[in-house]
Amino acid sequence: MNLKKYIRDIPDFPKPGILFKDITPLLHHPQAFAYSIDQIVQQYSNTPLDYVCGIESRGFIFASTIAYKLNLGFIPIRKVGKLPGKTQSIQYQLEYGTDELQIHEDALQNNDKVLLVDDLLATGGTMYGACQLVESLGAQIQGCAFLVELAFLSGKEKLKKWPTFSLIEFS
Amino acid sequence: MNLKKYIRDIPDFPKPGILFKDITPLLHHPQAFAYSIDQIVQQYSNTPLDYVCGIESRGFIFASTIAYKLNLGFIPIRKVGKLPGKTQSIQYQLEYGTDELQIHEDALQNNDKVLLVDDLLATGGTMYGACQLVESLGAQIQGCAFLVELAFLSGKEKLKKWPTFSLIEFS
Repeated sequence: MNLKKYIRDIPDFPKPGILFKDITPLLHHPQAFAYSIDQIVQQYSNTPLDYVCGIESRGFIFASTIAYKLNLGFIPIRKVGKLPGKTQSIQYQLEYGTDELQIHEDALQNNDKVLLVDDLLATGGTMYGACQLVESLGAQIQGCAFLVELAFLSGKEKLKKWPTFSLIEFS
Repeated sequence: MNLKKYIRDIPDFPKPGILFKDITPLLHHPQAFAYSIDQIVQQYSNTPLDYVCGIESRGFIFASTIAYKLNLGFIPIRKVGKLPGKTQSIQYQLEYGTDELQIHEDALQNNDKVLLVDDLLATGGTMYGACQLVESLGAQIQGCAFLVELAFLSGKEKLKKWPTFSLIEFS
């Protein structure tokens, strides 16, 4: 299935000069959405896993569905101030300035095996921060999965410590 | 399955005096999460539906998984400024002040049949706004589904124009 035809380019979003890859047509199309989930799930069907972590907000769409399909629990990694319990935080670098992600302290224990999921791999900064959060709780990262990878931004290089998979690659 | 034991009370979140219902233990538990999804899906297995709309952010977790399981497309309803294409907007009332939701203009057409999903029904203001957005595009609302309902806040009364279902009720 040619998934690229369900991703549309939106120029100058969120800022002038940026060509945004909009995945909403893929989500909108039942077969394209289901096929995407099934392909990512198949990638991890033989990997020992305890939890799937999703990164707010679009990451939740894929991570929760993959968790359901793999019969695993789902753990949200959220923007600062959104999680109600005791959290671990990490600041990470953006193109301009920094941002912060949080995870519940009690969400993971030593040696829990984790798959992290987000919709898009660009420079890898967000996923790098999420991986550091997961490892700070003693868990083992078994994989980082993305629907879309912008390969020209070299995010895989930044994430080279961990096994990374992306379903749709733009070069 | 007694799902209430997977929902924990967090006092004074997000503000002093509010007792927050934290659903992350339910998401964390594979059987509780899967059972919740399956129970909501079963509720709509005989309802004619074209799309499932999820409300950012926690609504995405349930709406996307329910869409996948029902072989339907998923449509995100997001906070202002997050959707990259042309949008319809709606302002809705909060306890103090207003907030705004958006949907892509081309996400729905006349007479499309829609299920809206969110994690929590409190006063119903957010879902009421989302329903108005969906109807502004000419679509038909076949149901509003929630994981948790705080029945003492009378959200169902506010949503009485549409068929509403909640899996876990706190009275």
